[in-house]
Amino acid sequence: MPLIATVEATPNIAVVKYWGKRDDKLILPQEGSQSFTLDSLKTRTTVMFSSEFKEDEFWLNGKKVDLNDKEVAERMQQLDVIRKKAGIALKARIVSINGFPTAAGFASSASGLAALACAASKAAGLNLDSKELSILARLGSGSACRSVVGGFVEWHKGVKADGSDSFAETLFPPEHWPELRLLSAILAEGKKKVSSRAGMKQTVATSVLYQARLASLPKLMQEMREAVKNKDFAKFAELTMRESNDLHSVMLDTWPPITYLNDLSKQVIYAVHELNAGNEVKAAYTFDAGPNAHIYTLEKYVPEIKKMLEGIEGVQKMIVSKVGHGPKYLTDESEHLIDPATGEVRKHYYDENANKIVVG
Amino acid sequence: MPLIATVEATPNIAVVKYWGKRDDKLILPQEGSQSFTLDSLKTRTTVMFSSEFKEDEFWLNGKKVDLNDKEVAERMQQLDVIRKKAGIALKARIVSINGFPTAAGFASSASGLAALACAASKAAGLNLDSKELSILARLGSGSACRSVVGGFVEWHKGVKADGSDSFAETLFPPEHWPELRLLSAILAEGKKKVSSRAGMKQTVATSVLYQARLASLPKLMQEMREAVKNKDFAKFAELTMRESNDLHSVMLDTWPPITYLNDLSKQVIYAVHELNAGNEVKAAYTFDAGPNAHIYTLEKYVPEIKKMLEGIEGVQKMIVSKVGHGPKYLTDESEHLIDPATGEVRKHYYDENANKIVVG
Repeated sequence: MPLIATVEATPNIAVVKYWGKRDDKLILPQEGSQSFTLDSLKTRTTVMFSSEFKEDEFWLNGKKVDLNDKEVAERMQQLDVIRKKAGIALKARIVSINGFPTAAGFASSASGLAALACAASKAAGLNLDSKELSILARLGSGSACRSVVGGFVEWHKGVKADGSDSFAETLFPPEHWPELRLLSAILAEGKKKVSSRAGMKQTVATSVLYQARLASLPKLMQEMREAVKNKDFAKFAELTMRESNDLHSVMLDTWPPITYLNDLSKQVIYAVHELNAGNEVKAAYTFDAGPNAHIYTLEKYVPEIKKMLEGIEGVQKMIVSKVGHGPKYLTDESEHLIDPATGEVRKHYYDENANKIVVG
Repeated sequence: MPLIATVEATPNIAVVKYWGKRDDKLILPQEGSQSFTLDSLKTRTTVMFSSEFKEDEFWLNGKKVDLNDKEVAERMQQLDVIRKKAGIALKARIVSINGFPTAAGFASSASGLAALACAASKAAGLNLDSKELSILARLGSGSACRSVVGGFVEWHKGVKADGSDSFAETLFPPEHWPELRLLSAILAEGKKKVSSRAGMKQTVATSVLYQARLASLPKLMQEMREAVKNKDFAKFAELTMRESNDLHSVMLDTWPPITYLNDLSKQVIYAVHELNAGNEVKAAYTFDAGPNAHIYTLEKYVPEIKKMLEGIEGVQKMIVSKVGHGPKYLTDESEHLIDPATGEVRKHYYDENANKIVVG
């Protein structure tokens, strides 16, 4: 039997954000965080181990990636951890493709590194639980640890130095709040200027306000759990928006300052506040390390939010997602991105019109 | 002798900003603040008391202002305090004009209410010291209390409930650091969305990070005093920029969020950081309750900063100021905006080309 596995994983959009490590190497966070794992925007990753392979190889969106690059090597450190756990020394071939337009402005590190953790450990013959998978994914990218499970997810900060208690788990499955939707607005000029990895390091080192943010998070997370538990959208929305603003405040308070929100982001912010000023709270914006707006809403309000966004010049694309179940193991042989028989990378591409990944 | 006096006062641009009151009526601040009083951008104000006047009247930039308007009445509360101190019950005529284009985007409340405090008390026959004048000006607009004196100024927070120890004083006169310049860049779309009065109230009430800002200010003010004392521009610049960013952080952390910085402001921020990345620190940006950039620099760098700003599309106007001596009492009869003999408002206007106030 060839040592091969294929997994599709999806991004998660945090409502209490991760910003700041207490351990750079193990990617242990300063505080916990919370997110919903989406059901769309899949990254598919196939991992194969073989004695035929002379060295590790990594193909991303059809291009070979240099594994000697320091940042890439750091992100792939889970590979050696998996080999050690499995007691194998075989080289790996990794092929990964994003099932959404790159220009969509979505960070694929969470979905990509969650898919890698699941596919690589499965291919190596390991049968890990979600806690172990979450810890592996975390080694590649902090937020990836939240994408190994579905629904409403909390990443526990943990206190141990080895990171063995810093992992994510589902607090509520997707079925708990089926009406919840995420509407992502991709804005013009949506390029990151500062990587989140470098940025959060600077914030921890320099922001005068950062400790006050950290101190406020445990209570916020408790309130967020309650709001999600009760499906109290108005409360959930206020907590989510205030948390996003708080995060971008400490970014601005960083030295030198980090400013991801642009004038278009601010237009979305004002439009959401205006929309919510009526009888009902209908939308909650949240911004990650970039200007694109992610708007949590309920199914019944989606048309209204879309209309609102259509009125803002510079909104280039809208993507609506439901909450998803987390990574999916693809067991049909034809879905692998690598031919199990030969170890060759199969022809594969993302068909934007059909919105699907085509293999072979 | 008619009871008349004319004063010219100028704005001040804070390096440690005032944002948040502990007493709304007396305008007592949550913390101290520091600024330089400018030598240009004058507001001229004439005040006359007369038994001929049937009611108080206020003319601003050639237009009569309704003194029954609640906000205007609050800003003019010092008038009654002055009458009480002087033991007079006469009605006042107040005429005020800004000696700079209104479109320049400068708040004239500091210069205007400082000029009013000085002119009205002088006209009423009072001979007040700068501490008493500062307290009067403060009743009209917090930051105005810093414009009644020149040079590098500190507004002492004070602890008394009656505000008698909350006033500004000069720490270093303009001669201490004669090379210091302020270059103000007026940007496109420079309209305030939220008044600073309303905004700071919201911040005090809602920002999670605000207490951390307050806690950091005493140490910052001490460092700022040292930097100005030593004319250490690099240190002064870093403190000034970090303080501005910190202020705008707590604004963003306010609920609903307050965002004065726009994409052009951010371009200026990035350009200053790039300029400072060389061997010398040459510039320090600071932003008040609006998008316009105020850049402290040294005389020798002014051409370079101007060139930098000319490279940014959307910078509409640049104004260079030195540090000034504070309010000036105009004693030449012809300079009054009111005819002392008749009490009539004299014809007066601001000649933008000649950059002077013309009377008669």
